[in-house]
Amino acid sequence: MIVLLTDFGQSEYVGVMKGVIYRAYGDAKIVDLCHEIGPQSIVEASWVLKNGYRYFPAGAIFCCVVDPGVGSERKALAVKTADYYFVAPGNGLLWETLREQEIVETRAIPVPQDASSTFHGRDVFAKAAGEISLGRFETLGPQIERIEKLEFPLDGRKGIVVRIDRFGNIVTNLPAAGRREYSVKAGEQQWNMDCYRTYEVAPDNELFLIEGSCGTLEISLKNGAANDRLRLEVGQPIEIS
Amino acid sequence: MIVLLTDFGQSEYVGVMKGVIYRAYGDAKIVDLCHEIGPQSIVEASWVLKNGYRYFPAGAIFCCVVDPGVGSERKALAVKTADYYFVAPGNGLLWETLREQEIVETRAIPVPQDASSTFHGRDVFAKAAGEISLGRFETLGPQIERIEKLEFPLDGRKGIVVRIDRFGNIVTNLPAAGRREYSVKAGEQQWNMDCYRTYEVAPDNELFLIEGSCGTLEISLKNGAANDRLRLEVGQPIEIS
Amino acid sequence: MIVLLTDFGQSEYVGVMKGVIYRAYGDAKIVDLCHEIGPQSIVEASWVLKNGYRYFPAGAIFCCVVDPGVGSERKALAVKTADYYFVAPGNGLLWETLREQEIVETRAIPVPQDASSTFHGRDVFAKAAGEISLGRFETLGPQIERIEKLEFPLDGRKGIVVRIDRFGNIVTNLPAAGRREYSVKAGEQQWNMDCYRTYEVAPDNELFLIEGSCGTLEISLKNGAANDRLRLEVGQPIEIS
Repeated sequence: MIVLLTDFGQSEYVGVMKGVIYRAYGDAKIVDLCHEIGPQSIVEASWVLKNGYRYFPAGAIFCCVVDPGVGSERKALAVKTADYYFVAPGNGLLWETLREQEIVETRAIPVPQDASSTFHGRDVFAKAAGEISLGRFETLGPQIERIEKLEFPLDGRKGIVVRIDRFGNIVTNLPAAGRREYSVKAGEQQWNMDCYRTYEVAPDNELFLIEGSCGTLEISLKNGAANDRLRLEVGQPIEIS
Repeated sequence: MIVLLTDFGQSEYVGVMKGVIYRAYGDAKIVDLCHEIGPQSIVEASWVLKNGYRYFPAGAIFCCVVDPGVGSERKALAVKTADYYFVAPGNGLLWETLREQEIVETRAIPVPQDASSTFHGRDVFAKAAGEISLGRFETLGPQIERIEKLEFPLDGRKGIVVRIDRFGNIVTNLPAAGRREYSVKAGEQQWNMDCYRTYEVAPDNELFLIEGSCGTLEISLKNGAANDRLRLEVGQPIEIS
Repeated sequence: MIVLLTDFGQSEYVGVMKGVIYRAYGDAKIVDLCHEIGPQSIVEASWVLKNGYRYFPAGAIFCCVVDPGVGSERKALAVKTADYYFVAPGNGLLWETLREQEIVETRAIPVPQDASSTFHGRDVFAKAAGEISLGRFETLGPQIERIEKLEFPLDGRKGIVVRIDRFGNIVTNLPAAGRREYSVKAGEQQWNMDCYRTYEVAPDNELFLIEGSCGTLEISLKNGAANDRLRLEVGQPIEIS
């Protein structure tokens, strides 16, 4: 099974990657994890992968393409862990996930001379995932030892915004602390927010905190989009104490 | 076959549900019916299900998650009809569809202690659909008799807006009445609109009515988005006479 | 394999087409090429098909529905080429692709009496694709000789905008000319733009040209959406010299 994670939206770039895989590696089963990562948001992709991969069957091959450095000297990586395979640009996208996994081997995928310098999803990563699906991880390229680091900052009650979801919820990497009221600081602004266990018991028309499905605090608005009000951005520091 | 219908957009929430199903129920075939239901719009999901389910193969399992009451006391339902299975929160989403189907049995799915209180799609509904795909409907939970009612209001020429589609067409639940001209009332506003059989014969730049693919009247704008002009909302009363 | 290309976005119209195919032609494998073609943009669909089809396995059946003339007298086409099958409305969508392919046979698909006049994707094209997947191309309808022409204008350094992608890149049909600086004219406006080989080496906050993954010039903005600034439209003439 090949699982796709990109910032390509619903565009043909995803469809073409599937074509490439089916054309050369016909029996592959392809599943979409998510394609609406904010354009170029490595942090957001990293969060979604870290919180999603473990729900997939062992042996799944994650093909992750959020790649602002496409065509540059950045590496293209293939990583084998005890449970899964990961293919991605060497930009830190995999770091937080691999911290949780036992790495067996990492390889650098060479970029073919005739690859487009804007679409390695098609010309590099889809093919690499297909190769792995045929059991050819070892022949992908030379072994390497180091991969790029991209850690979500987390210092006490200071973290970052890691995801704005389709409901406008603002997801942070800060674990809940069991309180009913929190003080939230982001940029120059500060708010007091209550924390509720479900959307239903939250008051109408008032920003509140909730422990989201990844186990961290999220800012929500009942039947509305919290981020239409706050306009925070992924990667932005936030303190919730 | 498991068919997904949610308001999750193109987010990872859909991908994670697929992961859960493939991980525990590997042979399932998963199909997306629609994920761009307006956030929390039970009415819209209900309309899309009612007008879509019959195109799928008999035996299909519809896993429907539009769930503003997630984590609250609302029930989680699994329904077996003569032709299909349906899994959904007990919020009325299934009502209009089940009116057309012979119900064989309804069961309440217990929510596990460790389920997230914001994402039952992952922790309750995907698993229930997977269980049904393995023939385990009867062991899902206790039988129940009543399900929640959510009827589309329809009184003579008074109905509601049931869907705003991706073209900005405003879909109503009002059947066409064979006329060439109609009077349309919504809120404080009123318009006279002609009815055409195809988009092509409609005039440019003028709102018009057309019998849509569900057999009801829709307000359209040729090569444009009718609802960019009218700004109606799903659930809003509308009279077309 | 049936490959879908539509302007239906993420709507239920796509899901219902899949239902129709799975219901009557159960073993079909369905793949999404792209559904976020601009509403009614035959040019954009034509570009995406022309630049995507060859990545799919030989024998694939492309079911293309961008169909502003739905329900009118326009033909519904099925085309068999040396390598693929194509199903689409007779509005020029297939022209640019078929120029590259050896056409074996073209047939006109009759529209059933009871087809919706707004949704031939469901009632005509999905079924035709399914029939072809069962080897029944020859019984689809009568042979025809001519198909509608829709050529991308290209005259020296004058071409058109063929696609606005999800990153806001403005894709043209103009091949790169190996220069470092270009003059770009569109409508009443003119800009000087540098051409870069990768996004990474381009300067921040400045529009630039890049050879895109289809081998033509695209206008880009690093970590931003070029078309949020320029507001060009698909089909619009553009000169890059």
